[in-house]
Amino acid sequence: MNIDFDKMQGLVPAIVQDGSNGEILMLGFMNREACDRTLNTGYVTFFSRTRNQLWTKGETSGNRLKLIAAATDCDRDTLLLQVEVEGAGVVCHEGTRSCFTQPLSRADEKKAGEKQVGQKNESGNPQRVQS
Amino acid sequence: MNIDFDKMQGLVPAIVQDGSNGEILMLGFMNREACDRTLNTGYVTFFSRTRNQLWTKGETSGNRLKLIAAATDCDRDTLLLQVEVEGAGVVCHEGTRSCFTQPLSRADEKKAGEKQVGQKNESGNPQRVQS
Repeated sequence: MNIDFDKMQGLVPAIVQDGSNGEILMLGFMNREACDRTLNTGYVTFFSRTRNQLWTKGETSGNRLKLIAAATDCDRDTLLLQVEVEGAGVVCHEGTRSCFTQPLSRADEKKAGEKQVGQKNESGNPQRVQS
Repeated sequence: MNIDFDKMQGLVPAIVQDGSNGEILMLGFMNREACDRTLNTGYVTFFSRTRNQLWTKGETSGNRLKLIAAATDCDRDTLLLQVEVEGAGVVCHEGTRSCFTQPLSRADEKKAGEKQVGQKNESGNPQRVQS
């Protein structure tokens, strides 16, 4: 399978989706080695941009991401990974199942880049947009 | 809402999910202006990296992405958008609902960067990983 690592200096974004209910859990980045390791081991390994090294999710916490299914998109520059979360079932380092806990609303328009304390919910599901 | 546009030279990845069934439709990138426009208009606008300009998805085809809900993740460097697809309901320029039509299998390990004709299915759902 040809994956286009050239558009982003050797990386592709990888969306992590709960294989059982479709919830989006997180997004990480992979280089070729991380992608190979993920497909080879059946557990998700990313490339950490901040630490500049491979990073097998859940390696220390036990909340590993077991690969159920994988696909790339039409441009072959993004991955979609369906997983089963092992261990305590928590993906986010803040203790929630999903990392997507901070809703954006229309009230956030024109403030997308400004500093502001983010609201949170516990569900991991985005809130309805308030118009 | 503070969004971190600094990690990727002014861009953040935005995951587009079907608000009705959780299917992942595509991933695009947004700069601050695209994000503001999306929240302001209620329709998804990306920043095209290849064309270096804003790009309102479906502007010509009519298959616009109506924003239902939006969230950012714990690091505030990725967006999750739940949408309703208008028009013919097709998101991918290749005529499928989702862009994620090319399954990866364990047979693809160690070949992630090699040129190879990708398999396709019509469902937009990743195939089970073959071990």
